Amino acid sequence: MLIINKESKVTLYEQIYNQLREQILKGVIPENSMLPSIRNLAGMLQVSRNTVESAYQQLYSEGYVSSKGGSGFKVERIEPNLLGETATEPRVVNHPFQEINEQGVMNTERIFFQYGRLRFTDFPVRTIRRLMNQILLSSEIEGISAYRNRKGEIELRTEITKYLYEARGVRCNPEQIILGSGMPYCIGLLSQLLMRYTNEIAMEEPCYDAVRSAFINHRFKISPVPVEKDGIDITALDRSTAGAVYVTPSHQFPTGSVLPVNKRLNLIHWADEREAYIIEDDYDSELRYSSRPIPSLQSLDRKGRVIYINSFSKSFAPGLRISFIVLPETLLEVYHLFFSKYNCPVPWLEQKIMHEFMKQGHWSRHLRKISVSNKKRHDVLINEITAVMEDDQVLIHGRNAGLHIILEVNNGLTEKELIEKADAEGVTVYPVSSHYADCRNFKNNQVLIGFSSLSEVEIVTGIHLLKRAWF
Amino acid sequence: MLIINKESKVTLYEQIYNQLREQILKGVIPENSMLPSIRNLAGMLQVSRNTVESAYQQLYSEGYVSSKGGSGFKVERIEPNLLGETATEPRVVNHPFQEINEQGVMNTERIFFQYGRLRFTDFPVRTIRRLMNQILLSSEIEGISAYRNRKGEIELRTEITKYLYEARGVRCNPEQIILGSGMPYCIGLLSQLLMRYTNEIAMEEPCYDAVRSAFINHRFKISPVPVEKDGIDITALDRSTAGAVYVTPSHQFPTGSVLPVNKRLNLIHWADEREAYIIEDDYDSELRYSSRPIPSLQSLDRKGRVIYINSFSKSFAPGLRISFIVLPETLLEVYHLFFSKYNCPVPWLEQKIMHEFMKQGHWSRHLRKISVSNKKRHDVLINEITAVMEDDQVLIHGRNAGLHIILEVNNGLTEKELIEKADAEGVTVYPVSSHYADCRNFKNNQVLIGFSSLSEVEIVTGIHLLKRAWF
Repeated sequence: MLIINKESKVTLYEQIYNQLREQILKGVIPENSMLPSIRNLAGMLQVSRNTVESAYQQLYSEGYVSSKGGSGFKVERIEPNLLGETATEPRVVNHPFQEINEQGVMNTERIFFQYGRLRFTDFPVRTIRRLMNQILLSSEIEGISAYRNRKGEIELRTEITKYLYEARGVRCNPEQIILGSGMPYCIGLLSQLLMRYTNEIAMEEPCYDAVRSAFINHRFKISPVPVEKDGIDITALDRSTAGAVYVTPSHQFPTGSVLPVNKRLNLIHWADEREAYIIEDDYDSELRYSSRPIPSLQSLDRKGRVIYINSFSKSFAPGLRISFIVLPETLLEVYHLFFSKYNCPVPWLEQKIMHEFMKQGHWSRHLRKISVSNKKRHDVLINEITAVMEDDQVLIHGRNAGLHIILEVNNGLTEKELIEKADAEGVTVYPVSSHYADCRNFKNNQVLIGFSSLSEVEIVTGIHLLKRAWF
Repeated sequence: MLIINKESKVTLYEQIYNQLREQILKGVIPENSMLPSIRNLAGMLQVSRNTVESAYQQLYSEGYVSSKGGSGFKVERIEPNLLGETATEPRVVNHPFQEINEQGVMNTERIFFQYGRLRFTDFPVRTIRRLMNQILLSSEIEGISAYRNRKGEIELRTEITKYLYEARGVRCNPEQIILGSGMPYCIGLLSQLLMRYTNEIAMEEPCYDAVRSAFINHRFKISPVPVEKDGIDITALDRSTAGAVYVTPSHQFPTGSVLPVNKRLNLIHWADEREAYIIEDDYDSELRYSSRPIPSLQSLDRKGRVIYINSFSKSFAPGLRISFIVLPETLLEVYHLFFSKYNCPVPWLEQKIMHEFMKQGHWSRHLRKISVSNKKRHDVLINEITAVMEDDQVLIHGRNAGLHIILEVNNGLTEKELIEKADAEGVTVYPVSSHYADCRNFKNNQVLIGFSSLSEVEIVTGIHLLKRAWF
């Protein structure tokens, strides 16, 4: 029995989803029973079919029900959760970036510890303006009126090849590089490729929620594999039936752990044995503050099992929308066959700018510059937390790399309460729970803190306000 | 029995595909029999599994075999072909754009009657340079360091809304508009949406091959529906079991036919009855040379069944990579739910440029300008063909609109021979056959002639060379 309140602020979809989810978890709707048909439930509740469909799809995405195409949704056996913690209330739905979604502007009174946004002072705007005018005044500009190389301009792919070899040990030739316009495009392309080999993808638990949603939208079954202190649990991965795995070995997102070389070799061995593919997302690997960057998984792979992906969003500017895939030679033939009609989604101008920027040597200078400026922010953040909060009050996870940390807060408050209390003091921190496939796995006292968009003064102020909010 | 020649110039994949295809067509491999497993055939022929897999996948894509996941490939019943013509030799694999694929430059000695490339003289480069410098010098440039509105900048979507209403009768609000970065992205997004409702998409036969390949790569079954003189055959569509249809009603690609209003209403009625969706690709609708543009299908839809897509590639510059989807309100909730984590793939700079260009009134002037210049090229092309070739030698299809025509040549030569003979005279014309789902359907004496990238002199010269090549 579901009860719908059309006057409620909670959307109809969420009301249906929440009640069904709770009834499945509590066993009120038992394993193997069929949910009512979408048409029937919509009629009964007097809501649109899309609303019911949406609620069912969300339950399906999270693994509460299975779907057999036209024949309806069946309640799954709910396994004991993977990591032992239990949180039966729905997770916090406050997603990163939502505050800039509609107007593209931030509320500047507040302090946003946002992940992924960069500080504009780190962007080499004068060099970019000069390069752009050179390009616009040259005869090359005629390139804008044509469809061009489908994988991306060969000159840019050649520069990327050199950079990847020097900085990340990646061994490839430019033919293996395919440009994309951000995560949804790249995961979309890889989904279309991998669908030919498997319908199940293993992912770190937790992992970047946006990537998981893209795989789910391509109808993959997701096998969540626990993340240990040193990265993905290979034994648990081996128990899954997945034909591919998505990993972030250099700096696990969001926990910050690093996969040691033995586990890297085991992971490649696993893929080789099973003829599976590994997607290595090397998203912020340039930024290590206490040691040198760790060579990529791809550099260890002799079997053509690693698909390497990365972007210029964390290291240069999200607004450029340039990312790239390095396909192993084993997949190139399949790629050429099935994607030969896909035009490159990255505009010609961005490709030319990036090419000139790299060729003229600005890129390596830029990397050194952002590494220094983000290390400063990182150090201020860590020092301030350590100075202001007690050792037994907080635990910092994933320091010394990247653009974020996870803060575990031991004051009895839940994630939701931590976020709300911070919010009341004018500070936005972000949930970790949304990055879990199974919301029963997460430790319910952690928040995600990004530091790349803030000045050092803002970081200090923000931490003081958090101290006031939480302790 | 397959015979593989490793010394041949024909790739191993093509050799396997061609032989299997012929044997299935001739009944040597009968209906319902299983193909050998990929592993076995690869071992037997001493080729890689990916090679066999690719050949099988191509047969699957073209409907010769069906696939049941891990259990192998089964030979399908081959229906009598739809339109009565028969061409059992494999179609011409010379795809548009291939001559610029690797270096991004054209061989300028030749005349390319290429479809989709625009003439740079039609691009408003000085205005764009001025706008870009304004943007790069303004404080707004900080937007490049942030993730922005996930659907695209609201200001640009508002301008597009106004333009679509005035020019195409499309009724929507900016919330319904989602920006994409070209066809593969937009068809990918729609595939992820429509997968929730159907696994079968009806498409005009012939239709744009790149769109078909994108649907196939998302594992949709394609139902080809014949195109009549006045567009898609609705009675045939009604016999299919498809839950969605992709159409080009304003200017059918590639035949050039126009869907009259009665058939438009029937099409919407079909979708409404079946709760199906119509994807209306309005790709070159601004360009009509003998009448006013035809209002969009979306403008007739009262039931929320039409998904409208378009881009600035044909009307402005393919190198900008801006396209857009107008979702019906009925699909917005589902979109918000499942795609809330997808960042917009179009770079911030292109969005700002396009927004300023439209807001300042340049866009409507630009549309008038390209309409005049393309009409001139069109008229020169048609006049020259009519002057140089006899009435009983050639038939022109799809004139008075867009950027291409189809030329049917009655001299006993096949498509392949027509292309080869033109090639020997230094002129490139393009196959029509690749746009057919079933290569047995195409009239084997037609070529595709694009005129948007040529000067009037080049068009005249090209037609004279074709006369010499063919007659």
